[in-house]
Amino acid sequence: MSTIPELTARLIDGDRRALSKAITLVESRRSKDREKALELLDKLMPHTGNSRRIAISGSPGVGKSTFIEAFGEHLISTGERVAVLTIDPSSRLTGGSILGDKTRMPLLANNPEAYIRPTPSGNLLGGVARRSREVVALCEAAGYNTILIETVGVGQSETEAATMSDCYLLLLQPGSGDTLQGIKRGIMELADLVIVNKADGALLASARQSATHYLRALSLMQNTMPDWRCPVILCSSIEKTGQEEIAQQIDRYFTLARESGSFAQKRRAQNHQWLEDETIADMIEQFHHDAAIQARYTQAVKQLDSGHSPARIASHFVTQLLKGTPKNDRET
Amino acid sequence: MSTIPELTARLIDGDRRALSKAITLVESRRSKDREKALELLDKLMPHTGNSRRIAISGSPGVGKSTFIEAFGEHLISTGERVAVLTIDPSSRLTGGSILGDKTRMPLLANNPEAYIRPTPSGNLLGGVARRSREVVALCEAAGYNTILIETVGVGQSETEAATMSDCYLLLLQPGSGDTLQGIKRGIMELADLVIVNKADGALLASARQSATHYLRALSLMQNTMPDWRCPVILCSSIEKTGQEEIAQQIDRYFTLARESGSFAQKRRAQNHQWLEDETIADMIEQFHHDAAIQARYTQAVKQLDSGHSPARIASHFVTQLLKGTPKNDRET
Repeated sequence: MSTIPELTARLIDGDRRALSKAITLVESRRSKDREKALELLDKLMPHTGNSRRIAISGSPGVGKSTFIEAFGEHLISTGERVAVLTIDPSSRLTGGSILGDKTRMPLLANNPEAYIRPTPSGNLLGGVARRSREVVALCEAAGYNTILIETVGVGQSETEAATMSDCYLLLLQPGSGDTLQGIKRGIMELADLVIVNKADGALLASARQSATHYLRALSLMQNTMPDWRCPVILCSSIEKTGQEEIAQQIDRYFTLARESGSFAQKRRAQNHQWLEDETIADMIEQFHHDAAIQARYTQAVKQLDSGHSPARIASHFVTQLLKGTPKNDRET
Repeated sequence: MSTIPELTARLIDGDRRALSKAITLVESRRSKDREKALELLDKLMPHTGNSRRIAISGSPGVGKSTFIEAFGEHLISTGERVAVLTIDPSSRLTGGSILGDKTRMPLLANNPEAYIRPTPSGNLLGGVARRSREVVALCEAAGYNTILIETVGVGQSETEAATMSDCYLLLLQPGSGDTLQGIKRGIMELADLVIVNKADGALLASARQSATHYLRALSLMQNTMPDWRCPVILCSSIEKTGQEEIAQQIDRYFTLARESGSFAQKRRAQNHQWLEDETIADMIEQFHHDAAIQARYTQAVKQLDSGHSPARIASHFVTQLLKGTPKNDRET
């Protein structure tokens, strides 16, 4: 295996295989790999952040992958380099990557300016987003200036994608007013752009009607950014309509976000959250894997027979652990 | 407010108001209350563990509360003292206790030998089970020798109830083979006893047929305990049939579990899990609320602008935190 400095250089150079290798390293659960991953991420930091991070959200079946394929191709035609990340729900449910199939986006998968990567997730606290944030950073360092973060449309993946993106696209289906009721308000409130997909053929009229419904629903919600009214855009991934308007609205969104300072503020808050999630996940990992801590914990486990409550034993253990154990500690 | 020694004495004496007060104390999120709760739990430990902890699981609508009312009344008629705990799903969903209504079990609620308590839950790691385990301990100390732990039948509450009970009852509905498909295999595998509820009137024939289906499905699964075949029992909470057979099967289950050592082994493993969950939850709490740790963390946050990756900053912070910071530490 190449050294980290070599891998770093090749990745910054835009080498796809280096990027894939780096992502695998970052996603590895081996502690040896983690040390290398930290070195890599540290080296790459100056090369990260220079992208538009766009979440693509929507229920299963709404046509996210065909949309991403059509929209990704459009972006590339305007000179963008596009990375697509899919975020899986917790591996508790799937045991791995369920949407890892690149054949869902055959054109994009074969486009040299696109990079598609399914991201499995651990079930650690903050599991889904944890490594995905690092994968975003790696793609940025490799020169991708648009990162499309696809959610699987179930569970927490929808909200977690919002914690790592600048702009949130919600894909909806044409449908009656009844359908509208089924959309979770919490997800609708996250949307910076709403896209009514499948606006073609027999569904076109229905899509237009739905757009009106969605606009009305959105008018009752708070703006995601001052002076920004969430637009509702019709789109057909089959007839290739809507892509340009969506791209324009996204441009407009980023211009406003950057000018108002909202972009920088959001990134800053997301970085703080990232650090906090990492910190807590690291604490749990250290607890489980650090030999010295586990040795001390074994003593705590033995105390279970001593008549103290688990709550008391845990509390004492954690207090001691977090205060450290200088040699002149007389308390134990 | 009474002192902890007073509260302890009254609770051991079986005083219901003392028990309610103690549970409120244990469930409190105020750190001052937590210190008192730890003292209380510690004092009560020698009086805990002497009960049969029985999980009552099943989908919403299967009739869990009417079953618990009828079965609880039966147990009391044989001399038991019964505590009923409902476990809510995470407060993220509900913001509190959704099944707190004692009027669901009017007879049991007015029976002096029964105690009903809804347990809300925090959204900490291991949130649902965390305080519930302590509530079980409090009820045991107050002299309740059967603890019925009711799940709400959704999300993780089903599996979490299994981590704090000796015996797992799964309530199912009469229904066709199709219905059987809908039951999550993972839940079925947890069952020590399967009860086909609503086996009365027009549903009786269907209930018999379902029992056969369920037995067949169970025969393909691993036993929950060596030499134990999960029985399937018909039951009607309205016609008051099945309660005695269920009680007998539970007796048989506990006799076998105690004789084989499986009971002690399970309790021991559950205590270990309890301690571990407490430890991790405590670590996270300390991280968020300890002033000295937060002061150090503020420094880590400032490093976000220094060009290091959040992963690296977190890793360094956690390593330092868990190693303690003796004064001669030269690393920082």
